[in-house]
Amino acid sequence: MNAKPTIAILGGTGDLGSGLAKCWLAAGYKVVIGSRSADKAKSFAKELGGEASGDDNAGAAKAADIVVLAVPFANHEASLREVRDVVQGKIVVDAAVPLVPPKVSVVQLPPEGSAAQIAQRLLGEGVRVVSAFHNVGATKLHQGGRADCDVLVFGDDKASRDIVIELASKVASAGIDGGVLANSAAAEALTSVLIGINRRYKVPGAGIRITGLPAAGQ
Amino acid sequence: MNAKPTIAILGGTGDLGSGLAKCWLAAGYKVVIGSRSADKAKSFAKELGGEASGDDNAGAAKAADIVVLAVPFANHEASLREVRDVVQGKIVVDAAVPLVPPKVSVVQLPPEGSAAQIAQRLLGEGVRVVSAFHNVGATKLHQGGRADCDVLVFGDDKASRDIVIELASKVASAGIDGGVLANSAAAEALTSVLIGINRRYKVPGAGIRITGLPAAGQ
Repeated sequence: MNAKPTIAILGGTGDLGSGLAKCWLAAGYKVVIGSRSADKAKSFAKELGGEASGDDNAGAAKAADIVVLAVPFANHEASLREVRDVVQGKIVVDAAVPLVPPKVSVVQLPPEGSAAQIAQRLLGEGVRVVSAFHNVGATKLHQGGRADCDVLVFGDDKASRDIVIELASKVASAGIDGGVLANSAAAEALTSVLIGINRRYKVPGAGIRITGLPAAGQ
Repeated sequence: MNAKPTIAILGGTGDLGSGLAKCWLAAGYKVVIGSRSADKAKSFAKELGGEASGDDNAGAAKAADIVVLAVPFANHEASLREVRDVVQGKIVVDAAVPLVPPKVSVVQLPPEGSAAQIAQRLLGEGVRVVSAFHNVGATKLHQGGRADCDVLVFGDDKASRDIVIELASKVASAGIDGGVLANSAAAEALTSVLIGINRRYKVPGAGIRITGLPAAGQ
Protein backbone atom coordinates (compact mmCIF):
# COMPACT_ATOMS: atom_id res chain seq x y z
CA MET A 1 0.00 0.00 0.00
CA ASN A 2 1.72 3.16 -1.14
CA ALA A 3 -1.28 5.44 -0.86
CA LYS A 4 -3.13 5.67 2.44
CA PRO A 5 -5.27 2.57 2.98
CA THR A 6 -9.06 2.77 2.90
CA ILE A 7 -10.49 1.86 6.29
CA ALA A 8 -13.88 0.26 6.88
CA ILE A 9 -15.30 0.65 10.38
CA LEU A 10 -17.94 -1.93 11.24
CA GLY A 11 -20.06 -0.51 14.00
CA GLY A 12 -19.01 2.83 12.56
CA THR A 13 -22.10 4.67 13.79
CA GLY A 14 -21.38 3.69 17.40
CA ASP A 15 -19.53 5.70 20.02
CA LEU A 16 -16.02 4.32 19.48
CA GLY A 17 -16.46 3.62 15.77
CA SER A 18 -17.60 7.13 14.93
CA GLY A 19 -14.84 8.62 17.08
CA LEU A 20 -12.21 6.61 15.20
CA ALA A 21 -13.82 7.66 11.90
CA LYS A 22 -13.50 11.36 12.77
CA CYS A 23 -9.80 11.02 13.63
CA TRP A 24 -8.89 9.08 10.52
CA LEU A 25 -10.90 11.35 8.22
CA ALA A 26 -9.11 14.33 9.76
CA ALA A 27 -5.79 12.58 9.07
CA GLY A 28 -6.68 12.15 5.39
CA TYR A 29 -7.80 8.52 5.24
CA LYS A 30 -10.79 7.30 3.24
CA VAL A 31 -13.30 5.81 5.67
CA VAL A 32 -16.23 3.53 4.88
CA ILE A 33 -18.79 3.43 7.67
CA GLY A 34 -20.29 -0.03 8.06
CA SER A 35 -23.56 -0.73 9.83
CA ARG A 36 -26.21 -3.41 9.75
CA SER A 37 -28.35 -0.90 7.86
CA ALA A 38 -26.76 0.50 4.70
CA ASP A 39 -29.13 3.48 4.81
CA LYS A 40 -28.09 4.37 8.35
CA ALA A 41 -24.42 4.04 7.39
CA LYS A 42 -24.86 6.24 4.31
CA SER A 43 -26.69 9.01 6.08
CA PHE A 44 -24.15 8.97 8.93
CA ALA A 45 -21.28 9.15 6.42
CA LYS A 46 -22.94 12.19 4.86
CA GLU A 47 -22.98 13.86 8.29
CA LEU A 48 -19.27 13.11 8.72
CA GLY A 49 -18.49 14.62 5.32
CA GLY A 50 -15.06 14.55 3.71
CA GLU A 51 -13.86 11.21 2.38
CA ALA A 52 -16.54 9.23 4.24
CA SER A 53 -18.94 6.81 2.60
CA GLY A 54 -21.30 4.23 4.04
CA ASP A 55 -22.59 0.73 3.32
CA ASP A 56 -23.80 -2.38 5.10
CA ASN A 57 -21.08 -4.27 7.01
CA ALA A 58 -20.20 -6.70 4.20
CA GLY A 59 -20.18 -3.96 1.56
CA ALA A 60 -17.98 -1.72 3.71
CA ALA A 61 -15.55 -4.57 4.43
CA LYS A 62 -15.36 -5.41 0.74
CA ALA A 63 -14.53 -1.82 -0.24
CA ALA A 64 -11.67 -1.40 2.26
CA ASP A 65 -8.03 -2.41 2.68
CA ILE A 66 -8.26 -2.53 6.46
CA VAL A 67 -11.42 -3.52 8.33
CA VAL A 68 -11.94 -2.29 11.89
CA LEU A 69 -14.44 -4.10 14.09
CA ALA A 70 -15.95 -1.68 16.61
CA VAL A 71 -19.10 -3.60 17.48
CA PRO A 72 -20.41 -4.57 20.92
CA PHE A 73 -19.22 -7.99 22.09
CA ALA A 74 -22.79 -9.31 21.78
CA ASN A 75 -22.57 -8.77 17.99
CA HIS A 76 -18.91 -9.79 17.67
CA GLU A 77 -19.27 -13.31 16.34
CA ALA A 78 -22.20 -12.50 14.05
CA SER A 79 -20.29 -9.58 12.53
CA LEU A 80 -17.22 -11.74 11.96
CA ARG A 81 -19.28 -14.41 10.19
CA GLU A 82 -20.97 -11.73 8.08
CA VAL A 83 -17.66 -10.45 6.65
CA ARG A 84 -15.50 -13.58 6.76
CA ASP A 85 -15.50 -14.15 3.02
CA VAL A 86 -14.77 -10.58 1.99
CA VAL A 87 -11.92 -9.93 4.46
CA GLN A 88 -9.68 -12.81 3.34
CA GLY A 89 -6.18 -11.47 2.68
CA LYS A 90 -6.89 -8.24 4.59
CA ILE A 91 -6.03 -6.85 8.01
CA VAL A 92 -8.93 -7.00 10.45
CA VAL A 93 -8.51 -4.77 13.49
CA ASP A 94 -10.57 -6.09 16.36
CA ALA A 95 -11.52 -3.53 19.00
CA ALA A 96 -14.15 -5.72 20.63
CA VAL A 97 -14.00 -6.07 24.41
CA PRO A 98 -15.55 -9.10 26.08
CA LEU A 99 -17.67 -7.20 28.60
CA VAL A 100 -20.34 -9.30 30.28
CA PRO A 101 -23.27 -7.09 31.43
CA PRO A 102 -24.33 -6.20 34.02
CA LYS A 103 -20.89 -6.51 35.69
CA VAL A 104 -18.90 -4.69 33.02
CA SER A 105 -16.34 -3.51 35.58
CA VAL A 106 -15.41 -7.10 36.46
CA VAL A 107 -12.88 -8.89 34.25
CA GLN A 108 -14.60 -11.88 32.62
CA LEU A 109 -12.38 -13.11 29.79
CA PRO A 110 -13.84 -15.73 27.43
CA PRO A 111 -12.67 -19.36 27.65
CA GLU A 112 -10.82 -18.83 24.34
CA GLY A 113 -8.54 -16.32 26.15
CA SER A 114 -9.60 -13.14 24.36
CA ALA A 115 -12.06 -11.71 21.84
CA ALA A 116 -9.13 -11.32 19.42
CA GLN A 117 -8.36 -15.02 19.48
CA ILE A 118 -12.05 -15.78 18.83
CA ALA A 119 -11.82 -13.51 15.78
CA GLN A 120 -8.68 -15.15 14.45
CA ARG A 121 -10.20 -18.61 14.83
CA LEU A 122 -13.41 -17.57 13.10
CA LEU A 123 -11.76 -15.73 10.21
CA GLY A 124 -9.05 -18.31 9.58
CA GLU A 125 -5.37 -17.98 8.80
CA GLY A 126 -5.92 -16.02 5.59
CA VAL A 127 -6.77 -12.95 7.66
CA ARG A 128 -4.23 -10.96 9.68
CA VAL A 129 -6.11 -10.12 12.87
CA VAL A 130 -4.72 -7.22 14.88
CA SER A 131 -6.25 -6.19 18.17
CA ALA A 132 -6.27 -2.58 19.38
CA PHE A 133 -8.25 0.45 20.64
CA HIS A 134 -9.75 -1.36 23.68
CA ASN A 135 -8.81 1.32 26.15
CA VAL A 136 -9.59 4.48 24.19
CA GLY A 137 -12.30 6.69 25.65
CA ALA A 138 -14.30 8.12 22.74
CA THR A 139 -15.11 11.47 24.37
CA LYS A 140 -11.91 13.19 23.31
CA LEU A 141 -12.19 11.84 19.75
CA HIS A 142 -15.63 13.38 19.35
CA GLN A 143 -14.23 16.71 20.52
CA GLY A 144 -11.81 16.60 17.59
CA GLY A 145 -8.71 15.69 19.59
CA ARG A 146 -6.59 12.62 20.15
CA ALA A 147 -7.16 10.60 23.32
CA ASP A 148 -4.63 11.19 26.11
CA CYS A 149 -3.48 7.57 26.31
CA ASP A 150 -1.43 4.91 24.56
CA VAL A 151 -2.98 2.20 22.40
CA LEU A 152 -1.60 -1.32 22.88
CA VAL A 153 -1.52 -3.15 19.53
CA PHE A 154 -1.40 -6.95 19.33
CA GLY A 155 -1.14 -9.40 16.45
CA ASP A 156 0.85 -12.37 15.23
CA ASP A 157 2.17 -10.50 12.15
CA LYS A 158 4.68 -7.75 12.96
CA ALA A 159 4.15 -5.80 9.69
CA SER A 160 0.41 -5.65 10.34
CA ARG A 161 0.99 -4.47 13.90
CA ASP A 162 3.16 -1.65 12.54
CA ILE A 163 0.40 -0.52 10.16
CA VAL A 164 -2.09 -0.36 13.04
CA ILE A 165 0.45 1.39 15.30
CA GLU A 166 0.54 4.12 12.64
CA LEU A 167 -3.29 4.32 12.63
CA ALA A 168 -3.29 4.46 16.43
CA SER A 169 -0.98 7.49 16.38
CA LYS A 170 -3.79 9.47 14.69
CA VAL A 171 -6.24 8.61 17.47
CA ALA A 172 -4.24 8.62 20.70
CA SER A 173 -0.84 9.65 22.10
CA ALA A 174 0.90 6.64 20.55
CA GLY A 175 0.45 3.08 19.40
CA ILE A 176 2.63 0.62 21.33
CA ASP A 177 3.67 -2.82 20.06
CA GLY A 178 2.15 -5.24 22.58
CA GLY A 179 3.30 -8.44 20.89
CA VAL A 180 1.36 -11.52 19.82
CA LEU A 181 -2.40 -11.72 19.51
CA ALA A 182 -2.77 -13.83 22.67
CA ASN A 183 -1.54 -10.79 24.62
CA SER A 184 -4.76 -8.99 23.71
CA ALA A 185 -6.20 -10.52 26.89
CA ALA A 186 -4.28 -7.87 28.86
CA ALA A 187 -5.89 -4.89 27.11
CA GLU A 188 -9.31 -6.51 27.00
CA ALA A 189 -9.17 -7.22 30.74
CA LEU A 190 -7.89 -3.73 31.39
CA THR A 191 -11.03 -2.24 29.86
CA SER A 192 -13.14 -3.55 32.74
CA VAL A 193 -10.58 -2.21 35.22
CA LEU A 194 -10.72 1.24 33.57
CA ILE A 195 -14.54 1.25 33.59
CA GLY A 196 -14.34 0.62 37.34
CA ILE A 197 -11.73 3.36 37.77
CA ASN A 198 -13.98 5.82 35.91
CA ARG A 199 -16.70 5.09 38.45
CA ARG A 200 -14.58 5.08 41.60
CA TYR A 201 -12.54 8.17 40.71
CA LYS A 202 -15.48 9.94 39.00
CA VAL A 203 -13.63 10.60 35.73
CA PRO A 204 -15.00 10.29 32.19
CA GLY A 205 -12.24 8.36 30.44
CA ALA A 206 -9.32 6.78 32.30
CA GLY A 207 -6.72 5.25 30.01
CA ILE A 208 -3.19 3.92 30.26
CA ARG A 209 0.21 5.19 29.26
CA ILE A 210 3.30 3.02 29.02
CA THR A 211 6.08 4.51 31.17
CA GLY A 212 9.81 3.94 30.82
CA LEU A 213 9.95 4.24 27.01
CA PRO A 214 12.35 6.55 25.18
CA ALA A 215 10.81 10.01 24.76
CA ALA A 216 10.05 9.49 21.06
CA GLY A 217 7.79 6.57 21.91
CA GLN A 218 5.75 8.48 24.45
CA MET B 1 -3.76 -0.54 63.24
CA ASN B 2 -2.81 2.83 64.64
CA ALA B 3 0.95 2.38 64.37
CA LYS B 4 2.49 1.43 61.02
CA PRO B 5 1.86 -2.24 60.26
CA THR B 6 4.72 -4.74 60.28
CA ILE B 7 5.19 -6.18 56.80
CA ALA B 8 6.54 -9.65 56.02
CA ILE B 9 7.90 -10.15 52.52
CA LEU B 10 8.03 -13.80 51.46
CA GLY B 11 10.61 -14.10 48.73
CA GLY B 12 12.13 -11.04 50.40
CA THR B 13 15.66 -11.81 49.20
CA GLY B 14 14.52 -11.81 45.55
CA ASP B 15 14.69 -8.93 43.10
CA LEU B 16 11.17 -7.51 43.64
CA GLY B 17 10.94 -8.53 47.30
CA SER B 18 14.18 -6.85 48.30
CA GLY B 19 13.27 -3.74 46.31
CA LEU B 20 9.95 -3.47 48.15
CA ALA B 21 11.76 -4.02 51.45
CA LYS B 22 14.12 -1.10 50.82
CA CYS B 23 11.25 1.27 50.03
CA TRP B 24 9.16 0.33 53.03
CA LEU B 25 12.14 0.44 55.41
CA ALA B 26 12.95 3.90 54.08
CA ALA B 27 9.35 4.92 54.75
CA GLY B 28 9.60 3.78 58.37
CA TYR B 29 7.88 0.39 58.30
CA LYS B 30 9.14 -2.67 60.17
CA VAL B 31 9.94 -5.34 57.58
CA VAL B 32 10.44 -9.06 58.18
CA ILE B 33 12.28 -10.75 55.31
CA GLY B 34 10.94 -14.25 54.69
CA SER B 35 12.86 -16.92 52.82
CA ARG B 36 12.90 -20.69 52.69
CA SER B 37 16.14 -20.48 54.67
CA ALA B 38 15.90 -18.56 57.95
CA ASP B 39 19.68 -18.05 57.94
CA LYS B 40 19.65 -16.50 54.49
CA ALA B 41 16.76 -14.24 55.50
CA LYS B 42 18.52 -13.15 58.70
CA SER B 43 21.81 -12.31 57.05
CA PHE B 44 20.02 -10.43 54.26
CA ALA B 45 18.04 -8.46 56.86
CA LYS B 46 21.29 -7.50 58.54
CA GLU B 47 22.56 -6.14 55.21
CA LEU B 48 19.39 -4.10 54.83
CA GLY B 49 19.79 -2.67 58.32
CA GLY B 50 17.26 -0.40 60.01
CA GLU B 51 14.04 -2.04 61.16
CA ALA B 52 14.62 -5.22 59.12
CA SER B 53 14.62 -8.71 60.56
CA GLY B 54 14.57 -12.12 58.91
CA ASP B 55 13.03 -15.58 59.42
CA ASP B 56 11.77 -18.54 57.43
CA ASN B 57 8.56 -17.89 55.49
CA ALA B 58 6.18 -19.17 58.17
CA GLY B 59 8.00 -17.35 60.95
CA ALA B 60 8.02 -14.10 58.99
CA ALA B 61 4.32 -14.42 58.15
CA LYS B 62 3.51 -15.09 61.80
CA ALA B 63 5.38 -12.00 63.00
CA ALA B 64 3.69 -9.57 60.60
CA ASP B 65 0.38 -7.75 60.23
CA ILE B 66 0.56 -7.76 56.43
CA VAL B 67 2.17 -10.57 54.41
CA VAL B 68 3.48 -9.83 50.92
CA LEU B 69 4.07 -12.75 48.56
CA ALA B 70 6.89 -11.92 46.14
CA VAL B 71 7.84 -15.43 45.09
CA PRO B 72 8.19 -16.83 41.56
CA PHE B 73 4.99 -18.41 40.24
CA ALA B 74 6.64 -21.83 40.38
CA ASN B 75 6.75 -21.54 44.21
CA HIS B 76 3.41 -19.74 44.55
CA GLU B 77 1.18 -22.59 45.67
CA ALA B 78 3.82 -24.17 47.93
CA SER B 79 4.43 -20.83 49.67
CA LEU B 80 0.71 -20.29 50.18
CA ARG B 81 0.29 -23.74 51.75
CA GLU B 82 3.29 -23.09 53.98
CA VAL B 83 1.78 -19.97 55.55
CA ARG B 84 -1.94 -20.72 55.32
CA ASP B 85 -2.43 -21.32 59.04
CA VAL B 86 -0.47 -18.31 60.27
CA VAL B 87 -2.03 -15.72 57.90
CA GLN B 88 -5.64 -16.31 58.91
CA GLY B 89 -7.25 -12.96 59.72
CA LYS B 90 -4.45 -11.02 57.99
CA ILE B 91 -4.02 -9.23 54.68
CA VAL B 92 -1.98 -11.22 52.16
CA VAL B 93 -0.67 -9.13 49.28
CA ASP B 94 -0.04 -11.35 46.27
CA ALA B 95 2.47 -10.03 43.75
CA ALA B 96 2.89 -13.34 41.93
CA VAL B 97 2.63 -13.26 38.16
CA PRO B 98 1.66 -16.42 36.26
CA LEU B 99 4.57 -16.38 33.81
CA VAL B 100 5.08 -19.66 31.95
CA PRO B 101 8.72 -20.04 30.87
CA PRO B 102 10.16 -19.98 28.33
CA LYS B 103 7.53 -17.72 26.72
CA VAL B 104 7.30 -15.18 29.53
CA SER B 105 6.33 -12.41 27.11
CA VAL B 106 3.19 -14.29 26.05
CA VAL B 107 0.07 -13.94 28.21
CA GLN B 108 -0.81 -17.36 29.61
CA LEU B 109 -3.32 -16.87 32.42
CA PRO B 110 -4.14 -19.89 34.58
CA PRO B 111 -7.51 -21.68 34.20
CA GLU B 112 -8.54 -20.20 37.57
CA GLY B 113 -8.39 -16.72 35.97
CA SER B 114 -5.45 -15.29 37.90
CA ALA B 115 -2.76 -16.11 40.44
CA ALA B 116 -4.63 -13.94 42.94
CA GLN B 117 -7.77 -16.06 42.69
CA ILE B 118 -5.66 -19.19 43.22
CA ALA B 119 -4.30 -17.57 46.39
CA GLN B 120 -7.74 -16.65 47.71
CA ARG B 121 -9.05 -20.15 47.09
CA LEU B 122 -6.06 -21.76 48.81
CA LEU B 123 -6.03 -19.44 51.84
CA GLY B 124 -9.79 -19.43 52.39
CA GLU B 125 -12.21 -16.68 53.27
CA GLY B 126 -10.53 -15.85 56.57
CA VAL B 127 -7.73 -14.14 54.65
CA ARG B 128 -8.13 -10.83 52.81
CA VAL B 129 -6.13 -11.35 49.63
CA VAL B 130 -5.08 -8.18 47.84
CA SER B 131 -3.18 -8.33 44.57
CA ALA B 132 -0.62 -5.68 43.56
CA PHE B 133 2.94 -4.81 42.44
CA HIS B 134 2.83 -6.98 39.28
CA ASN B 135 4.07 -4.24 36.98
CA VAL B 136 6.78 -2.65 39.10
CA GLY B 137 10.31 -2.86 37.72
CA ALA B 138 12.66 -3.40 40.65
CA THR B 139 15.61 -1.47 39.19
CA LYS B 140 14.46 1.94 40.45
CA LEU B 141 13.67 0.55 43.90
CA HIS B 142 17.20 -0.77 44.31
CA GLN B 143 18.52 2.67 43.37
CA GLY B 144 16.64 4.11 46.34
CA GLY B 145 13.83 5.74 44.36
CA ARG B 146 10.19 5.04 43.68
CA ALA B 147 9.28 3.37 40.38
CA ASP B 148 7.93 5.70 37.69
CA CYS B 149 4.59 3.92 37.30
CA ASP B 150 1.24 3.34 38.96
CA VAL B 151 0.40 0.19 40.91
CA LEU B 152 -3.01 -1.33 40.26
CA VAL B 153 -4.43 -2.77 43.49
CA PHE B 154 -7.17 -5.43 43.48
CA GLY B 155 -9.12 -7.15 46.23
CA ASP B 156 -12.63 -7.98 47.31
CA ASP B 157 -12.36 -5.90 50.52
CA LYS B 158 -12.20 -2.15 49.95
CA ALA B 159 -10.57 -1.31 53.31
CA SER B 160 -7.75 -3.77 52.58
CA ARG B 161 -7.28 -2.30 49.10
CA ASP B 162 -6.92 1.15 50.69
CA ILE B 163 -4.20 -0.11 53.07
CA VAL B 164 -2.23 -1.56 50.13
CA ILE B 165 -2.77 1.60 48.03
CA GLU B 166 -1.00 3.46 50.86
CA LEU B 167 1.88 0.94 50.78
CA ALA B 168 2.09 1.27 46.98
CA SER B 169 2.52 5.04 47.27
CA LYS B 170 5.87 4.40 49.02
CA VAL B 171 7.10 2.24 46.13
CA ALA B 172 5.75 3.83 42.95
CA SER B 173 4.05 6.99 41.70
CA ALA B 174 0.67 5.97 43.11
CA GLY B 175 -1.52 3.04 44.03
CA ILE B 176 -4.75 2.90 42.03
CA ASP B 177 -7.91 1.09 43.12
CA GLY B 178 -8.45 -1.55 40.42
CA GLY B 179 -11.54 -3.14 41.95
CA VAL B 180 -12.31 -6.75 42.80
CA LEU B 181 -9.75 -9.54 43.01
CA ALA B 182 -10.88 -11.12 39.73
CA ASN B 183 -9.60 -7.98 37.98
CA SER B 184 -6.05 -8.97 38.91
CA ALA B 185 -6.02 -10.89 35.62
CA ALA B 186 -5.52 -7.55 33.85
CA ALA B 187 -2.32 -6.62 35.72
CA GLU B 188 -0.99 -10.17 35.67
CA ALA B 189 -1.49 -10.38 31.90
CA LEU B 190 0.02 -6.94 31.47
CA THR B 191 3.29 -8.13 33.02
CA SER B 192 3.96 -10.38 30.01
CA VAL B 193 3.11 -7.49 27.69
CA LEU B 194 5.56 -5.22 29.52
CA ILE B 195 8.32 -7.87 29.42
CA GLY B 196 7.86 -7.96 25.64
CA ILE B 197 7.88 -4.16 25.42
CA ASN B 198 11.16 -4.08 27.39
CA ARG B 199 12.69 -6.34 24.74
CA ARG B 200 11.21 -4.69 21.65
CA TYR B 201 11.86 -1.10 22.76
CA LYS B 202 15.16 -1.97 24.51
CA VAL B 203 14.22 -0.40 27.85
CA PRO B 204 14.88 -1.78 31.34
CA GLY B 205 11.53 -1.33 33.03
CA ALA B 206 8.38 -0.33 31.15
CA GLY B 207 5.39 0.24 33.41
CA ILE B 208 1.94 1.74 33.17
CA ARG B 209 0.36 4.94 34.31
CA ILE B 210 -3.38 5.54 34.51
CA THR B 211 -4.29 8.65 32.52
CA GLY B 212 -7.37 10.82 32.92
CA LEU B 213 -7.35 10.92 36.72
CA PRO B 214 -7.54 14.16 38.74
CA ALA B 215 -4.01 15.54 39.35
CA ALA B 216 -3.99 14.45 43.01
CA GLY B 217 -4.38 10.84 41.97
CA GLN B 218 -1.51 10.90 39.49
